[in-house]
Amino acid sequence: MGMIGGGIDSFIGDVHRKAAKLDAMIELVCGAFSSTEEKAKRSGQELNLAENRCYGNFEEMILAEKEFAADQRMDFVSIVTPNFMHFAPAKMALENGFHVVCDKPMTLTIEEAEELEELTSSTGLLFAVTHNYTGHPMVKQARAMVANNELGKIRKIQVHYLQGWLSTSVEKTGHKQAAWRVDPSKSGVGGALGDIGTHAENLIEYITGLHLTEVAADLGKFGEGRVLDDDGNILLRLENGAKGTMSFSQIAVGEENNLSIRVYGEKGSLEWSQENPNQLITRWLDKPSITFTPNGNILHKEALEASRIPAGHPEGYLEAFANIYKNFAIHLNAKLENRGIDKIDYPTVTDGVRGVKFIHAVVESDNKNSAWVKMN
Amino acid sequence: MGMIGGGIDSFIGDVHRKAAKLDAMIELVCGAFSSTEEKAKRSGQELNLAENRCYGNFEEMILAEKEFAADQRMDFVSIVTPNFMHFAPAKMALENGFHVVCDKPMTLTIEEAEELEELTSSTGLLFAVTHNYTGHPMVKQARAMVANNELGKIRKIQVHYLQGWLSTSVEKTGHKQAAWRVDPSKSGVGGALGDIGTHAENLIEYITGLHLTEVAADLGKFGEGRVLDDDGNILLRLENGAKGTMSFSQIAVGEENNLSIRVYGEKGSLEWSQENPNQLITRWLDKPSITFTPNGNILHKEALEASRIPAGHPEGYLEAFANIYKNFAIHLNAKLENRGIDKIDYPTVTDGVRGVKFIHAVVESDNKNSAWVKMN
Amino acid sequence: MGMIGGGIDSFIGDVHRKAAKLDAMIELVCGAFSSTEEKAKRSGQELNLAENRCYGNFEEMILAEKEFAADQRMDFVSIVTPNFMHFAPAKMALENGFHVVCDKPMTLTIEEAEELEELTSSTGLLFAVTHNYTGHPMVKQARAMVANNELGKIRKIQVHYLQGWLSTSVEKTGHKQAAWRVDPSKSGVGGALGDIGTHAENLIEYITGLHLTEVAADLGKFGEGRVLDDDGNILLRLENGAKGTMSFSQIAVGEENNLSIRVYGEKGSLEWSQENPNQLITRWLDKPSITFTPNGNILHKEALEASRIPAGHPEGYLEAFANIYKNFAIHLNAKLENRGIDKIDYPTVTDGVRGVKFIHAVVESDNKNSAWVKMN
Amino acid sequence: MGMIGGGIDSFIGDVHRKAAKLDAMIELVCGAFSSTEEKAKRSGQELNLAENRCYGNFEEMILAEKEFAADQRMDFVSIVTPNFMHFAPAKMALENGFHVVCDKPMTLTIEEAEELEELTSSTGLLFAVTHNYTGHPMVKQARAMVANNELGKIRKIQVHYLQGWLSTSVEKTGHKQAAWRVDPSKSGVGGALGDIGTHAENLIEYITGLHLTEVAADLGKFGEGRVLDDDGNILLRLENGAKGTMSFSQIAVGEENNLSIRVYGEKGSLEWSQENPNQLITRWLDKPSITFTPNGNILHKEALEASRIPAGHPEGYLEAFANIYKNFAIHLNAKLENRGIDKIDYPTVTDGVRGVKFIHAVVESDNKNSAWVKMN
Repeated sequence: MGMIGGGIDSFIGDVHRKAAKLDAMIELVCGAFSSTEEKAKRSGQELNLAENRCYGNFEEMILAEKEFAADQRMDFVSIVTPNFMHFAPAKMALENGFHVVCDKPMTLTIEEAEELEELTSSTGLLFAVTHNYTGHPMVKQARAMVANNELGKIRKIQVHYLQGWLSTSVEKTGHKQAAWRVDPSKSGVGGALGDIGTHAENLIEYITGLHLTEVAADLGKFGEGRVLDDDGNILLRLENGAKGTMSFSQIAVGEENNLSIRVYGEKGSLEWSQENPNQLITRWLDKPSITFTPNGNILHKEALEASRIPAGHPEGYLEAFANIYKNFAIHLNAKLENRGIDKIDYPTVTDGVRGVKFIHAVVESDNKNSAWVKMN
Repeated sequence: MGMIGGGIDSFIGDVHRKAAKLDAMIELVCGAFSSTEEKAKRSGQELNLAENRCYGNFEEMILAEKEFAADQRMDFVSIVTPNFMHFAPAKMALENGFHVVCDKPMTLTIEEAEELEELTSSTGLLFAVTHNYTGHPMVKQARAMVANNELGKIRKIQVHYLQGWLSTSVEKTGHKQAAWRVDPSKSGVGGALGDIGTHAENLIEYITGLHLTEVAADLGKFGEGRVLDDDGNILLRLENGAKGTMSFSQIAVGEENNLSIRVYGEKGSLEWSQENPNQLITRWLDKPSITFTPNGNILHKEALEASRIPAGHPEGYLEAFANIYKNFAIHLNAKLENRGIDKIDYPTVTDGVRGVKFIHAVVESDNKNSAWVKMN
Repeated sequence: MGMIGGGIDSFIGDVHRKAAKLDAMIELVCGAFSSTEEKAKRSGQELNLAENRCYGNFEEMILAEKEFAADQRMDFVSIVTPNFMHFAPAKMALENGFHVVCDKPMTLTIEEAEELEELTSSTGLLFAVTHNYTGHPMVKQARAMVANNELGKIRKIQVHYLQGWLSTSVEKTGHKQAAWRVDPSKSGVGGALGDIGTHAENLIEYITGLHLTEVAADLGKFGEGRVLDDDGNILLRLENGAKGTMSFSQIAVGEENNLSIRVYGEKGSLEWSQENPNQLITRWLDKPSITFTPNGNILHKEALEASRIPAGHPEGYLEAFANIYKNFAIHLNAKLENRGIDKIDYPTVTDGVRGVKFIHAVVESDNKNSAWVKMN
Repeated sequence: MGMIGGGIDSFIGDVHRKAAKLDAMIELVCGAFSSTEEKAKRSGQELNLAENRCYGNFEEMILAEKEFAADQRMDFVSIVTPNFMHFAPAKMALENGFHVVCDKPMTLTIEEAEELEELTSSTGLLFAVTHNYTGHPMVKQARAMVANNELGKIRKIQVHYLQGWLSTSVEKTGHKQAAWRVDPSKSGVGGALGDIGTHAENLIEYITGLHLTEVAADLGKFGEGRVLDDDGNILLRLENGAKGTMSFSQIAVGEENNLSIRVYGEKGSLEWSQENPNQLITRWLDKPSITFTPNGNILHKEALEASRIPAGHPEGYLEAFANIYKNFAIHLNAKLENRGIDKIDYPTVTDGVRGVKFIHAVVESDNKNSAWVKMN
């Protein structure tokens, strides 16, 4: 693995590195960790990379790595830069034969997203988007239960993703993570929408297996002087006739990382919350409520495979994140060894395209005073 | 108190009677408990009322009671009939000098609601609407904290009211409570909207002290053959610029009576849930989360007054319901004794008007494919 | 019903009155509400009792009521005085043909307790002890599940009853409720032990249907100058070989009324907590955890009968307390009408004897440096 | 790091490896992973170790590693074998100049434990015992709050550690983890007591900073034919006069890994539970309940340092385990570089001795029918 972005001091770079190596299937061999050459190289050194593989920028890295022997060079790039710096390195990596892991939202525009999807398809390379919350065992249990028709036809969705860290104008106080997120040149047309709303969108589609077809959105810009949304409320319609709401916010004061979803079918319903990820609450027409736990009694195979330690020993954010990398690595190893694979269980470039379309549909709806906008 | 509706076998009649008498301030002296005379009278007998005060219908009761001496006759009527039978008895009671306690939604039309409001005003009689969830000590604590500006300016609201008891077509199986609720001639233009959505609307306005000004709604009719909504999702705008979502449902399978609200201000936020009513969770910009409990440490006076027993001894639905009656009785006693009163803390006819306007605004928005509709 | 003790300003008197009348089966007709005649009579007046039935002391009440016609006089006394004033009125009531409801612990000594048991037996009168926590629907569900062998043979019990209101020396600040509880002449040999420990003991025996046979106890007297326990830790052995722990405290600072129990059998286990009384969590050898709720899906008859309102509408302390009175009234009505009765579901004089024996066994063990003491 | 035990198929070996490398401060360079030479070597190969560093047994490993240059050889051994195989390799490692990380309970006898303590002292080598639950940020917050006297003098402790995985006789069905734990020749004199009771004991002493001084214990052997305890209930006395209870079990059917502790002081109390490790609930004399979260508002430095990711992103078992290794590595690096260190924050050989003494005091008390036994 070669990393683009995520230098020292980056929260998310460290998360990606810890997640990638947790299952001992992936090794970091090189990186272009920063937009400033000096910091990029220093980051590489602190990570104990070989000096010649601490690159000053991603172009240099991709070209240089290509020259290494196949068993020496990086197999894929992991792109953990701010949003506006996803497309260029992803495209160049694909064009030069490297597989890609990319942070979300995948690109700033739908055109860019679709170009990456086409490139992925035409090259046959792998492309993962790190919608990490789908890596939780109980999310996989939820998905398997829906797929297995245990809940019956899905009728109603409620999802919220609430944070409070932008409640005040921290972007004006030197807070780097905040600064780029409120800047449309770096974030794109969505603020909190792109940063966390897309996770909520992906979680819905992952669990239900259903596409969102229409959104009616009302975005808020509560922070003084903000031009991008820091809050949003959305009505949802899904392809099978189900309806729902999404609410996301980065000004929900006091909330930490409250991503929660409820899914109601004709026969049963389920509830999952990221801050307490190791239980899945289900409710039923004619049975009392049943709570599932990772590695607990009676789970679907997908949930069991996603858990590393016995029941009652909590796994968290990093372990779920690592499941994205693990499943990507399983697929990559199969590909490198020309083996088939039963299933692909990580978010792909197609999920990335959905996320970018979602952002644009929501913004368009908000611009039209919350009129319904199709999301195809 | 004289009761209209709520005969034996009625869930809500028994609730009103238990609630009304809990604090020993109100006595049931007469009733017209059913639309069929025989059942009406039998109900009265089973409740040990004097035979001559078990009336066959509400007109008879109002006229007869008027003839009793002032210290003998009922002081007020409590109307606990299905929605379509609220207006006529309420109007007649007011016109004949009786105070009124009325179930929600107050009337089928805005015109009727406003007529009751005018009658209340012109007669000087009291009128309570039983939005019982505002009777909980922790809801009163929430309201007092907002009023005291502890949360700062309110920015965001999330409320849901989820039940599952209409998940299947129980109205076709002889379920009386279900049957009239899905019948527009008895329920009015709103189904679940009127039945539970209005509670959610009232809870928002009660806690925040803010009016809803606009709604954009998407109603669902999931039960086979239903003509009224059994599910709804609504975008909200409030008079101070706050935004929010409401979701209500009676097809949220497995949910019992899940009314929950989150309110986010600039400095703090709060969360309350009806199924666990004895805690109020608050979160803050710069402090850890604080949980309040009834009669626990450091509460506002309004919360303390609403609690009957020491901290840790849970009070529930009946006790909160009783607080509506208790506060109404306090006001009524003051009025009967020509005393002033510090504050009126029960939902009044004005809240009833708001509820009916809410129903009509939501239905109009839904008819306009979720366009924003003003609610004034 | 005639009440002994529980005058105005008494928390528990008001609770008993509200509980007794909740289901409209019991009427308060007289009382001797205080040890001072003036206050006793004033309390009666404020409760709107007939003047001639506001008595100055319990002896007067029992003798006077006896003279009333059978359909006029009180049927039973409810004794809600401090511990030392339970025995004398209970004995006199029984001796004069009145049924009894008595607060816990029933008496100060085992001899007194056994005397009441014998009197009850010889007179054929009814005797209830208000171990109110057994009135909760979910406690009844728990008892029914154990009785139905759903958990298998019981192996392990954990119970705690934690309060914090005696954390500081409030008895020295004019706190009346605290003052008599720390005074052995009024409380007996147990402090917190008698006040709350006996509730925990009764809850174990009620749910499991098993007798405690031995205790090994370590009592604490943390409040400055206290001569009675305000804290205790106890090892338990039960008749079937099960083992367990009990911990109770009134110096568990910050705890409100945290009575919680866990029961483990060979096949399943259950967990219930008084502060969140409307759920019963069960766990199983080979199934995921199942949570029951009052009036929810799939309950035993005993739990259904104990619940007044639909699922999701919380009932609390008063409603559970009222179930003791309701079941007592059902039995009493049957007796008055010479009817048989299917089952007796309220704590009786025999439970009262168990409680007093428990107190004495625990104190003896503590005096013997926690040696095991039999409780027979 | 060289590992002893923990071959492929071992749950705990994998946990130690993941935990050790999580913060990129420790590298696994060699191992003697199994008691059978073939399996030991195969495990090493699967972990991609150099062939010459996959040893057949620990003696071989220690002697061979000693011959490597200082910058090549392992710095410390990590011993993750069953209990009876802790002492010999720990002793040999210390005698040959290697630092030690050792699983708990540290040894089978007090004599062995004290011998290791003396060796550690005389050699100046480091010795960590993996009481991993003390690695949680909220446990460190708890300890810091007690140390800072925020709770006042500690009065009461309640701890339980409940599992259900030995509810049936799984040791007779080929379950390897169960088999050695119920075998006194491999486990020592304690069964569940040594396996999980010692974690509870360590957690008490870690959080409160107080020593247990006396125990009165009642052990259970519920599994058919078991000679070691699979359940235990213990009265506790602490050096400052505090009292408490401990209950542990591996036959608490349905429990997963329920380690929970409550600590009550004169001014405040706290509650933490391993299955929901990212909150610390505190309660107070005169303030409402406050809940702390990792990286949330207002924490002690020790808690902040133990958390890797922002508030609301749950960390779990592995991350806490990794904190033991991280703090050990920090100390080791300081030692290797002859630097001083501010504080040592991992369980040491002295904690290991406490654990072994605890086991023996509990077993002695149980043998004496629960008489108090001193633990010095």
